[in-house]
Amino acid sequence: MDINLSEFLNLSEAEQAQYARGKSILFAQQFTREDLDFHCRLANASRFIHARDEGADFMSQLLRNKVCLNFFIQPSSRTFLSFNTAQTYLGMKRMSVRDLKISSVSKGESLADSIRTFISYVDLVVMRHPDEHAGAASFWVSEKAHRRIKVGGEEVAIPIISGGSGTKQHPTQALLDIYTLEDAFKNVGGIDGKTLMLVGDLKRGRTVRSLSYLMKNYQDVKLLFAAPDKYQMGEDICEFLDQHGIQYAKIESIEKGLAEADGIYMTRIQDEWDDLAPTSGHVKANENFIFKEAFLDKMKPHCCLMHPLPKRDEIEESIDYVDDPRVYYWRQERNGMWMRVAIIAELFKVADQIIDKAIEMGFKG
Amino acid sequence: MDINLSEFLNLSEAEQAQYARGKSILFAQQFTREDLDFHCRLANASRFIHARDEGADFMSQLLRNKVCLNFFIQPSSRTFLSFNTAQTYLGMKRMSVRDLKISSVSKGESLADSIRTFISYVDLVVMRHPDEHAGAASFWVSEKAHRRIKVGGEEVAIPIISGGSGTKQHPTQALLDIYTLEDAFKNVGGIDGKTLMLVGDLKRGRTVRSLSYLMKNYQDVKLLFAAPDKYQMGEDICEFLDQHGIQYAKIESIEKGLAEADGIYMTRIQDEWDDLAPTSGHVKANENFIFKEAFLDKMKPHCCLMHPLPKRDEIEESIDYVDDPRVYYWRQERNGMWMRVAIIAELFKVADQIIDKAIEMGFKG
Amino acid sequence: MDINLSEFLNLSEAEQAQYARGKSILFAQQFTREDLDFHCRLANASRFIHARDEGADFMSQLLRNKVCLNFFIQPSSRTFLSFNTAQTYLGMKRMSVRDLKISSVSKGESLADSIRTFISYVDLVVMRHPDEHAGAASFWVSEKAHRRIKVGGEEVAIPIISGGSGTKQHPTQALLDIYTLEDAFKNVGGIDGKTLMLVGDLKRGRTVRSLSYLMKNYQDVKLLFAAPDKYQMGEDICEFLDQHGIQYAKIESIEKGLAEADGIYMTRIQDEWDDLAPTSGHVKANENFIFKEAFLDKMKPHCCLMHPLPKRDEIEESIDYVDDPRVYYWRQERNGMWMRVAIIAELFKVADQIIDKAIEMGFKG
Repeated sequence: MDINLSEFLNLSEAEQAQYARGKSILFAQQFTREDLDFHCRLANASRFIHARDEGADFMSQLLRNKVCLNFFIQPSSRTFLSFNTAQTYLGMKRMSVRDLKISSVSKGESLADSIRTFISYVDLVVMRHPDEHAGAASFWVSEKAHRRIKVGGEEVAIPIISGGSGTKQHPTQALLDIYTLEDAFKNVGGIDGKTLMLVGDLKRGRTVRSLSYLMKNYQDVKLLFAAPDKYQMGEDICEFLDQHGIQYAKIESIEKGLAEADGIYMTRIQDEWDDLAPTSGHVKANENFIFKEAFLDKMKPHCCLMHPLPKRDEIEESIDYVDDPRVYYWRQERNGMWMRVAIIAELFKVADQIIDKAIEMGFKG
Repeated sequence: MDINLSEFLNLSEAEQAQYARGKSILFAQQFTREDLDFHCRLANASRFIHARDEGADFMSQLLRNKVCLNFFIQPSSRTFLSFNTAQTYLGMKRMSVRDLKISSVSKGESLADSIRTFISYVDLVVMRHPDEHAGAASFWVSEKAHRRIKVGGEEVAIPIISGGSGTKQHPTQALLDIYTLEDAFKNVGGIDGKTLMLVGDLKRGRTVRSLSYLMKNYQDVKLLFAAPDKYQMGEDICEFLDQHGIQYAKIESIEKGLAEADGIYMTRIQDEWDDLAPTSGHVKANENFIFKEAFLDKMKPHCCLMHPLPKRDEIEESIDYVDDPRVYYWRQERNGMWMRVAIIAELFKVADQIIDKAIEMGFKG
Repeated sequence: MDINLSEFLNLSEAEQAQYARGKSILFAQQFTREDLDFHCRLANASRFIHARDEGADFMSQLLRNKVCLNFFIQPSSRTFLSFNTAQTYLGMKRMSVRDLKISSVSKGESLADSIRTFISYVDLVVMRHPDEHAGAASFWVSEKAHRRIKVGGEEVAIPIISGGSGTKQHPTQALLDIYTLEDAFKNVGGIDGKTLMLVGDLKRGRTVRSLSYLMKNYQDVKLLFAAPDKYQMGEDICEFLDQHGIQYAKIESIEKGLAEADGIYMTRIQDEWDDLAPTSGHVKANENFIFKEAFLDKMKPHCCLMHPLPKRDEIEESIDYVDDPRVYYWRQERNGMWMRVAIIAELFKVADQIIDKAIEMGFKG
């Protein structure tokens, strides 16, 4: 990597993704269709073997001598806990830094130096950071630093996994969404040819942005963007879709897309990024973009209702108590944990061992 | 459980306890005499086998593939650390959420959704929460949710253990107090027939409330409530004692009860619940309800001096340095860790394995 | 220990160190030359065996049934993470308390009672505390408390390790600095006979103070104190050096010492202790005490550039990207983790097992 930090940060995400591929997880764009399919299979194999003590014991030996750090300085329950669970399933030892006030940043340390410190001790850094360049910068710092660890016979820099970086990227969420869609569509031909309706704060929702990028890997997909004007999908994503010949349409309510959608992806108004947000409460969802219980009757039989969570009022509360297999968001959440097992296993080159063990134990996937 | 959340929360604690029995730990009332005796024996067996590496290794295999979450959003050192130690002795992998500011609650998530998220990843939730209904609500949410884990051959909902809920209940503290009393009275016939003096803030002390409830399981127990009028035991507890024919008396100083008491249970003024508390300091203990070193001479030979801790000035500091086996509160604290091992082991149906191993290793209890 | 707490705290550090020797780690002064040499060898042996799974597995069995608490209530990344990594390498189970607001101190508990609570549950307490007497007081409390654990066949009180106490002591940092110097000078005869330049905030830098104390263990060492007048080394240290016949000189810039120094130890202005610090930023380093990239050309060929980190502007940023083996501070940081493995292993009497295993695996050190 003969390039300095500011040069690296000035590259496009696609170019940065080329550097990161196989080494760190920074962008949804770094995954090919083959990567995505393999990670879904690996997540299924991991889930399969973990269901019995024999498999869980096997899995917990794979990375037993590896230490990881979860460096999360933005609020997170789900991503933080699911990474922790995934790491412990793989036998990793875990540490966390969640508050800059109790770290050396309070003594004036730079992010680059903090990362150098972390990678002096640990073998993996998972990070959530408000700065959209934090993940890429940390990757660059790790590649330039001296410490190397052995992974699959090779000496590699300490891997960085982005658990959400600014408003732009949340690549592991995008992978778990793909995994959930593949699972929901497993009897109707997978994601190819499907229509997905994305609803809510598309402008600032990094999950819907990352998911849109990944659609380039699938055939004949159509996206419906259901959002109030002020929260509509950004022009950069629309241009990306145009370039890749992916159909999309902007629509003014959930109801307009209900009949057509094979999958519905709800999102919350991300008012934590909103300088204009009322300080004494949260922005209410717009009536046209609230998913009502009555809509379930109008959804296709195989349509899945997803949400990256946390949710607020954009899904009617009664739906939490409906016994309908198309209400997918809680399963989607646990899927995230399995996808994170897959991502870490692949980075540390133990994926094949998991697949082999699964087949030995009877896995057909 | 064909009952919705608000219906469930409107049930009496005794009725809620019926639902929770064997599944989650919410109330001191859910334990019978038989339960209490068994848990004491199990705690003793756990302590016995853990003293040697052979037993500690055995114990750490029992729940090695289980993950737990300690969700403590009120200050706690003792309960938090003792649960953590108990979990690690049993081989569980641990995670914690201690601050709502770094969780998704800051993005407007409801408690029900937070619990649904937690139980998507983990196999046990231990929680301390300021809302007195938080434990019961979380139990209800877990029973209604989809995820089930296998415990002793059965599919069960994720168990919830209350580590203190509002001002009312702290059931694991009550169990450890019973365990400590049984230990202190092991040569004088156990708890039956004894007189316990409860001292201090009886009104808001959840430990003394929970302990009072448990007295219904013992024969001929008498309670002495030593407290200033404003902190005297609540009418609900007095009515409960009347219904169960348990004797009690309200007294105006520690000294009045010293000659009669077989056990003395001190408590701290719980001024963290007190809107009138001076912001610049803590409420001082009333002179009549401070345990003085001189009182040790007037205590019965088998009388134990207990305190749930943390303490302040209600016990004279010099007593920390007295070498008197009747000063029981530090041992009571470690007893709590062993009782929590027993509670978790019983919930996860590995209690018999511990008892069997203990007998194999020479346990006579 | 027939001495009460205030008597103990009134002893000199040297006298306190006599009590702590072999039991707890409170002061740099408690180590003899033999101790230091042994710990360096042990750190090397630990690093050697951990490089292969066979050795890492061996090491992680040594303290597998021991639980430790990291009680750090001042900001720390490096010391905290390196202790955690060291503990997990040795197989210890870890807990942490990092914020008094979520502990029982918020309910008025004394430090002595907090320590009594911690040692009821855990087998080792590592602590960083703003009070310079906190470590010594905790050691005294642990020695006086009832709980004992078995270590190497003996019953011992729970050990306390200081991870930094007030402005005075940071003994494990001093040991890792010694380890780093020995490593840097391994081909030029070790520390004996060398000249070390200490630069920056010598007045409040506990690392340079602790390091100065340790120099009494080496022959013919000379110290150069390069600092602005207001940050010059304290008179107590100068007197100590005089008593032990160790040469030192105060100099007015880094450049004045460059030709003579075998090792250069940079430090940061510790403005977190400074009541006069501007609240809106950090104090800038004085121009004469900033290490410039150009100085590398004037350093001796074997001279090492060290820093306890975190750093700010006292080292020119470009040096982070220079490929010069004399730039030692990132390796120094990871050395700290190995030295902490050694310190804990020695306290728990498993040092010989590590050395024996290392020799079996081919260690020549």
